[in-house]
Amino acid sequence: MFDVRTDLALEENERIQKQKNDTRGISVDEEEYEEGSIRITTVRIETENAVRVMGKPRGTYITLEAPEMAEDSDGYHRNISERLAQLLHRLIPEEPAGASILVAGLGNRSVTPDALGPGVVDNLRITRHILKEFGSFAYSDAQVQPLCAIAPGVMAQTGMETREILEGIVGQVKPDYLIAIDSLAARSMKRLCRTIQISDTGISPGSGVGNHRHSITAETLGIPVIAVGIPTVVEAATIVQDFMADFEAEHREMSRPLLSPQLNRMFVTSKDIDAQIRQMSYIVSEGINMAFCG
Amino acid sequence: MFDVRTDLALEENERIQKQKNDTRGISVDEEEYEEGSIRITTVRIETENAVRVMGKPRGTYITLEAPEMAEDSDGYHRNISERLAQLLHRLIPEEPAGASILVAGLGNRSVTPDALGPGVVDNLRITRHILKEFGSFAYSDAQVQPLCAIAPGVMAQTGMETREILEGIVGQVKPDYLIAIDSLAARSMKRLCRTIQISDTGISPGSGVGNHRHSITAETLGIPVIAVGIPTVVEAATIVQDFMADFEAEHREMSRPLLSPQLNRMFVTSKDIDAQIRQMSYIVSEGINMAFCG
Amino acid sequence: MFDVRTDLALEENERIQKQKNDTRGISVDEEEYEEGSIRITTVRIETENAVRVMGKPRGTYITLEAPEMAEDSDGYHRNISERLAQLLHRLIPEEPAGASILVAGLGNRSVTPDALGPGVVDNLRITRHILKEFGSFAYSDAQVQPLCAIAPGVMAQTGMETREILEGIVGQVKPDYLIAIDSLAARSMKRLCRTIQISDTGISPGSGVGNHRHSITAETLGIPVIAVGIPTVVEAATIVQDFMADFEAEHREMSRPLLSPQLNRMFVTSKDIDAQIRQMSYIVSEGINMAFCG
Amino acid sequence: MFDVRTDLALEENERIQKQKNDTRGISVDEEEYEEGSIRITTVRIETENAVRVMGKPRGTYITLEAPEMAEDSDGYHRNISERLAQLLHRLIPEEPAGASILVAGLGNRSVTPDALGPGVVDNLRITRHILKEFGSFAYSDAQVQPLCAIAPGVMAQTGMETREILEGIVGQVKPDYLIAIDSLAARSMKRLCRTIQISDTGISPGSGVGNHRHSITAETLGIPVIAVGIPTVVEAATIVQDFMADFEAEHREMSRPLLSPQLNRMFVTSKDIDAQIRQMSYIVSEGINMAFCG
Repeated sequence: MFDVRTDLALEENERIQKQKNDTRGISVDEEEYEEGSIRITTVRIETENAVRVMGKPRGTYITLEAPEMAEDSDGYHRNISERLAQLLHRLIPEEPAGASILVAGLGNRSVTPDALGPGVVDNLRITRHILKEFGSFAYSDAQVQPLCAIAPGVMAQTGMETREILEGIVGQVKPDYLIAIDSLAARSMKRLCRTIQISDTGISPGSGVGNHRHSITAETLGIPVIAVGIPTVVEAATIVQDFMADFEAEHREMSRPLLSPQLNRMFVTSKDIDAQIRQMSYIVSEGINMAFCG
Repeated sequence: MFDVRTDLALEENERIQKQKNDTRGISVDEEEYEEGSIRITTVRIETENAVRVMGKPRGTYITLEAPEMAEDSDGYHRNISERLAQLLHRLIPEEPAGASILVAGLGNRSVTPDALGPGVVDNLRITRHILKEFGSFAYSDAQVQPLCAIAPGVMAQTGMETREILEGIVGQVKPDYLIAIDSLAARSMKRLCRTIQISDTGISPGSGVGNHRHSITAETLGIPVIAVGIPTVVEAATIVQDFMADFEAEHREMSRPLLSPQLNRMFVTSKDIDAQIRQMSYIVSEGINMAFCG
Repeated sequence: MFDVRTDLALEENERIQKQKNDTRGISVDEEEYEEGSIRITTVRIETENAVRVMGKPRGTYITLEAPEMAEDSDGYHRNISERLAQLLHRLIPEEPAGASILVAGLGNRSVTPDALGPGVVDNLRITRHILKEFGSFAYSDAQVQPLCAIAPGVMAQTGMETREILEGIVGQVKPDYLIAIDSLAARSMKRLCRTIQISDTGISPGSGVGNHRHSITAETLGIPVIAVGIPTVVEAATIVQDFMADFEAEHREMSRPLLSPQLNRMFVTSKDIDAQIRQMSYIVSEGINMAFCG
Repeated sequence: MFDVRTDLALEENERIQKQKNDTRGISVDEEEYEEGSIRITTVRIETENAVRVMGKPRGTYITLEAPEMAEDSDGYHRNISERLAQLLHRLIPEEPAGASILVAGLGNRSVTPDALGPGVVDNLRITRHILKEFGSFAYSDAQVQPLCAIAPGVMAQTGMETREILEGIVGQVKPDYLIAIDSLAARSMKRLCRTIQISDTGISPGSGVGNHRHSITAETLGIPVIAVGIPTVVEAATIVQDFMADFEAEHREMSRPLLSPQLNRMFVTSKDIDAQIRQMSYIVSEGINMAFCG
């Protein structure tokens, strides 16, 4: 069996269905909006068996698929942001009023497909310091919650684990929730920059372009961690493996050639990734602004 | 008397000398290097009286003046970096071997004269994560110390006090020393981008382009805090006030017109500040690399 | 008389009114929109006398003042963009359909208050290459005109006059109109980042943070040049001079102290200039998109 | 036969040798420096037959291979820059003194592996405007030649062909030589960020991350065009094809599966491409500075 890397529960579930694995403890719900142009799939991993089969932590994984996300349409992007705001509130209850949020924009600002997290932080409406100084009189809209944010950089830039930095800041600032934004690795090129995954499980080691080696989860940080991720790369090894899989289906007797270890340090992404990252950063930050900052 | 804003102890001392104030508790030493092209002045504020007169915390303020710092000469810049490395070791003893350093690049990456700190972090040789993974075998040079770094952003970007973020990270990562890099406000345009101030007092509220409202000091963080600053702006009000001061010296009888409060949100800087910030970021990061990372 | 630097015809006209100069050949019209929150003033310089008195080329200077431009309101910003689109069409007739536009984003991307032009270019909807490849079928909206754009950088970065670069590109690409976006110097701090000036006179030497030494006008380029500028700095010398002017009004007998030549290399801007440049870049690019790209 | 994309004449030559093609008209010379750590290969394509076999224009292709280019060693990088300066002078004669150079930094600043060209331009010593203003007295070193530079952006950003922009600027500024810097696509991952190709053939359509659709050559621009390129990506399709080639060598009877057309819009690069682009930009710009600006 292939060890195909995907950060998307949706893709993992597809693989399992295909392989006719034991799916007890995995529930899947689907919804459609905007005449089918936005599809929401909720995968719940509910038992130890499901954790083992899926290779992902127990929890809820909501996937918003919007095939035209990359197209240049302000109205459609606004629809996606509004859906994202609603999905965030499925995982972060609106009560109690005024729960405070820390957004962590993970990833490396200098590597285009890894710059989603920092890009989201750049567009957020930061309110915590204003509410702290002026109180609820600061905004005419009573629903503005205290929001703060950081783009901590990656280990090659800081020498520190992202988990260390966030654990320190959370201990000091004591937000009620952490929302961690990250670029993900998908298995299929078709999903790149068209899918948003929101989960209540936090972030586990080894995702995306960079490598956060330690978990950023409720267990390590002591507060609920909502992960928002968009696949922006496919691992280079995955592309070759996928290709081989189709091939071998027809030629089962063949021995599989070895993959170069160099492949493990490589990723695949699209030639217009800059425009897509800019657009998706804006969509996600607007969704967060709508959900928490009026 | 004018309330002229300067972050430089050197300038504060000049003012005091000029006004023939009580200078007990203030000691001043001068050195010259490279045929006078690098001048080092050490101001020590040693008593409560000196603290009051200088308006600055007790401690050692070393100023490196290099009038041609902005000129395009690789060799001269290397000399300045080497002097800076030596001065850092006057405040951070070379023993015990392997003391770990956290560098905080303060300021706003998006406002050119405030981008010194983030620029320094971009050029540092980050070693902590490599030493942690491979031990002392990681480097052939035995003198490489664990160095980590962060550019936390400013409150308008994060919603958090810089002090909160650093206190959190220091509590988690437990470095032996913090080196905080910041853009400063000078009183005199002649000092801009030609002077480096190194002090063992940390950073106090209200410096530079941005406003760090809470102290970043050994008292708040629990470890020694070395501040490295370069003046990159003059407060707009200062320019008018200085100009007025010369004027009034001749026309003492006159009433002083009021300054617009708007001036307080403005700063003055030079038209080629981008090239200067890039050059100085490099000089400072090289100095730190030489001092701690072989 | 003071040689106060302003790029705004509006300010120049105020000065002239105040000094009761000869205003023949200068016409001024005022309009108000959005309950007075957007004010439009059209200054026309129509005679040689007016050119001499105003110190600006003959032509039409439309100023859009929006005192709350810097506030965080999407709806209000959209209103400003719509007004800007209309004003552009006062100077660029909608007929003939399909006139092609080259936008030049002048200024230095690395100096925050000079980065307006490059920032506008980053947000434009570029259509020329798509229309060239797919023809009018490329867009469902028939009104999309061919738009291309460049941010040429400043002379310190390129070694070339901006005029040389644009003259070369215009000669090759042959657009019908050039729209040149630039940061301006105002005389009054109150106008910074609250005013957009649109004129049909092109750009004359010596504006803003940088210094375009040669004219970018219909005479030099051979096509109409529409200049769109926003004041983002005040020259440092202007602040002192303005201050002195008030002072001297009361103390006429006094000799004026000399200004340091160093002041001429300095500018004054606000501490939150990064957020303002980002917002204004977006407002201007949206205005251009609305005017020409459906 | 596979249509494997490589911009490196060196790789094309390897393929031809392997396939035992007709190599008449192709000459290859090899040199080694720095104890074998720098290897220089000169491929000359001298006949129509060679042009057809190699699929590249007639001319000289010099390849500098430095396997440790990505390692963190200032001295080694300086050696590479010095070699590059010498190689540039093989193609651009030192006589006549004072020949003027325009450097074009091609590629997209916002897509990390495509940002080599703009990064080189950022680090160049720009002299043309200073020599123009102050003449040969501007520099104590008589050997400083007039150097100017531009990073024109890519067609998706400008709506214009790079060739159109450069043709316009060259016509106006009239440099003696154009040096065009670009990111290249290699066939082998092993060559990424370890190889510099210098050729006197200019740049032909379809290279690297972006797509310059029209030639930038002496024919189109009217002056000699020296291309300096570094492979920073492998086309995604190439990786799969290479992999398949090994495979098929053993299983010749098999039908080859079709490649997804989506692959053509994808590229493969390494996870630390940001650090490598920064380092290589510096190496190349230093080489150009050494060659022409003393």
